[in-house]
Amino acid sequence: MLQEHEGWKQVQAAWAQYKEAVAAGGNPQALYQEMVWPHLLALWRVAPPVVPERMPFRASLHTLGTSPEATALAILGTGAREVYVLHTEESRRFLERLRQDTGVDIYPIEIGKSDVAAIYREVRRLLERYPEDPVALDVTSGTKAMSAGLAAAGFFFRRFFPKVKVVYVDNEDYDVALRRPRAGSERLIVLPDPHEVGGEVDWLFASELYGKEDFVGAAAYFQRLVGNTGNQAYTLYGMLAELYRAWRALDFKEAARKAESLLEALSRNVWLQHPLNRHFQRLRRQAELLQAARDLLATADLGNRQGVLAVAATLLYLSERYGKRGQTTLAALHAYRALELLLQERLRRFGRLAEAPRLSPEEAEALAAELGRILPGDEPPRVRERLGLLEVLAFLRVLGDPLLASLEVRALQGLAGVLKARNQALLVHGLQVPTEKQVEQVAALARRLLQDLQGEVGVQPDLEAIPLPR
Amino acid sequence: MLQEHEGWKQVQAAWAQYKEAVAAGGNPQALYQEMVWPHLLALWRVAPPVVPERMPFRASLHTLGTSPEATALAILGTGAREVYVLHTEESRRFLERLRQDTGVDIYPIEIGKSDVAAIYREVRRLLERYPEDPVALDVTSGTKAMSAGLAAAGFFFRRFFPKVKVVYVDNEDYDVALRRPRAGSERLIVLPDPHEVGGEVDWLFASELYGKEDFVGAAAYFQRLVGNTGNQAYTLYGMLAELYRAWRALDFKEAARKAESLLEALSRNVWLQHPLNRHFQRLRRQAELLQAARDLLATADLGNRQGVLAVAATLLYLSERYGKRGQTTLAALHAYRALELLLQERLRRFGRLAEAPRLSPEEAEALAAELGRILPGDEPPRVRERLGLLEVLAFLRVLGDPLLASLEVRALQGLAGVLKARNQALLVHGLQVPTEKQVEQVAALARRLLQDLQGEVGVQPDLEAIPLPR
Repeated sequence: MLQEHEGWKQVQAAWAQYKEAVAAGGNPQALYQEMVWPHLLALWRVAPPVVPERMPFRASLHTLGTSPEATALAILGTGAREVYVLHTEESRRFLERLRQDTGVDIYPIEIGKSDVAAIYREVRRLLERYPEDPVALDVTSGTKAMSAGLAAAGFFFRRFFPKVKVVYVDNEDYDVALRRPRAGSERLIVLPDPHEVGGEVDWLFASELYGKEDFVGAAAYFQRLVGNTGNQAYTLYGMLAELYRAWRALDFKEAARKAESLLEALSRNVWLQHPLNRHFQRLRRQAELLQAARDLLATADLGNRQGVLAVAATLLYLSERYGKRGQTTLAALHAYRALELLLQERLRRFGRLAEAPRLSPEEAEALAAELGRILPGDEPPRVRERLGLLEVLAFLRVLGDPLLASLEVRALQGLAGVLKARNQALLVHGLQVPTEKQVEQVAALARRLLQDLQGEVGVQPDLEAIPLPR
Repeated sequence: MLQEHEGWKQVQAAWAQYKEAVAAGGNPQALYQEMVWPHLLALWRVAPPVVPERMPFRASLHTLGTSPEATALAILGTGAREVYVLHTEESRRFLERLRQDTGVDIYPIEIGKSDVAAIYREVRRLLERYPEDPVALDVTSGTKAMSAGLAAAGFFFRRFFPKVKVVYVDNEDYDVALRRPRAGSERLIVLPDPHEVGGEVDWLFASELYGKEDFVGAAAYFQRLVGNTGNQAYTLYGMLAELYRAWRALDFKEAARKAESLLEALSRNVWLQHPLNRHFQRLRRQAELLQAARDLLATADLGNRQGVLAVAATLLYLSERYGKRGQTTLAALHAYRALELLLQERLRRFGRLAEAPRLSPEEAEALAAELGRILPGDEPPRVRERLGLLEVLAFLRVLGDPLLASLEVRALQGLAGVLKARNQALLVHGLQVPTEKQVEQVAALARRLLQDLQGEVGVQPDLEAIPLPR
């Protein structure tokens, strides 16, 4: 306890004597320097009171105005070995006093009294010198511009240098008659991070990650929020983030399960007022889409058209996203698979399967002829026992699929090489890397088939993440 | 110009008369209120001086200490319609005065004078009420705790509410004799963001993104840095980020090109002192790896063992990363392809190709027998014209590949189902989603083959991004 410290008792005694001396008509300023200040310094040299606790600061940066006493206490309170002081032309004269009071070899940096840019620059320079160490930025003294600028810099740079702290000297008791803090009531305060104080600030980080589609990161923050606030409402946001995490990872089973749990929770009395309930209908439609996809994967029944729609729409959505991030190989892979799945579904309408098409001799001949038209000049393609992407497409034309039969041969000729190349792609069996243009050719046809399927099923798939409330 | 404003001239005249009155022995405080303050208020009501310029604030939040005049000016300077004032028990008595001076219907919020947590809470509440609007946080008045807390909150929450600004009233001229700012020299300052002041702060954002392996985002920041600072040294960091962007996207051609450009730049006299030159040897080895991979893709020559090593190591590295992000389907795809490529390379050592293995009748028989051992109970597998993953593995055992022949049949039996399932994976031709355990089985064998190849080639591939200097 500070109050039991011998030095503190001496400060109290000195303060009482000082008050008497002032009352007797002495000069308050001179008497304070003589009677109180040496005791206060002696106390802060050995046992500075720091809230919440003393910390091992490696370096400290202080603004210096016209009240050097508070800065002296801040220097002793942080206890840093490397001490930098931002002073103005006017406050330069206090530097020597500060060195004597603290016994520390202070490094001075002169700045203009309203030069916020200079403060930012010096803070950054200091933090880059001690990137891994605790650094204190003391805003106690100096002009408004200086201390506001220093506090701003502190919290801005915390993002990159997490060990920086903003500190200031406060007092618990102000003597109104003497117009100064009661000696011994001063404290060095380490300003808490908004993050540490309000657990709910995690909500902002969670929203930020969710907005960037980092659903893994968002879910982790929602989980923490439940723990830190005890508010189970965040569990529902966690389910939502995990739903999209699983969906984007093509884990339709898990995504459907999360969607079902979320809808179930939102239907309970306790959560009827939950903000996500405003999106209940949208969530229900997304859940239906995910269930259809899950069922397709479980049964492999291509007659499940809504399932095909859901999976193909997801693959195309991801293809586009990978393309935008410069991930052409992944974009190609997803577009190929979307197209193939949509073609497989159309073949199924004729009762045929790509992996066992059971071609009659006439059909085999017609398919070979069709492939010859699409790939003129190539040696006549051999029709193999299972149909690849290009063969399915050609066979659907033979079978009279209205959409595919309506495509012009010239358009297909451009696509044929791309489709033939699929098995040679780096992520399949070969070493080829597709170009963006090739991906777009595949995706364009897939989108056309998807649109046709949407019309038939009567569902416009909605894959966007539900927005979080602010 | 403010100096040409009629109101400003009146303030100047009032200030001159006031100085005379004080010199004649009047009460400075009372005279100021009577002679100067009404003119100053009148000026700020119509033309408040704001640096850098007036902004359309929707709401403002002010700390209130024992100097209500500065807060009144801040309220008029921000011009917000919704005005909130954080006051203490002590400063509550100034509220009415503030209302009269500004003519604004102020909303008061009482907090303890050192209660930083309350400030954070109120700031957050206010920002969530006006998430899309400009909000001013005024730190002019109040205790150190109050203004430091408000500045801290302002810069912390800017990340999520980009339109919030920290402001304060400063003065350009202080009358030392009168101990107050010269009337008319006050300004409302909108504190600039560290981001706006020092272009080089972008470096921190770039480093942050680079550290998170967001190389697309990092490259964009490096590009901006070149523009904002005119310093071409950042171009080299941009090349580095683009190198890894391309590498992670399996675009070895582009990655090798960037690596070559970077090495070339680092060898030039002008960049001999560039911080990246400390990593020149590592970069050179990475460039060699990328060149080998690029050549493999260009020539499809599996005899290029270093190329196989580079591509397979990359695929395994990405597989692991996708797995950690819960992207099991992508993790599986990459692990399958890594294993296949490594097996293809081993088959090539026997002069064979998986897509045209040219099996002799004896070999075909031996392969069928080996597959029967690995897959007991299944109907005897048909050996097809091109060898799949499992067939290559079995055939390598038949051929006497030392590593694969040394594997126990029991261990392979566990793996066989996984390998057979590859073509049925959702991203290949089917609708199956692999489990994490299956991915790990495939990756484990691939890692073992990779290690063997590393030993033969004598290269330990280094795929980690070169760290940026701080």
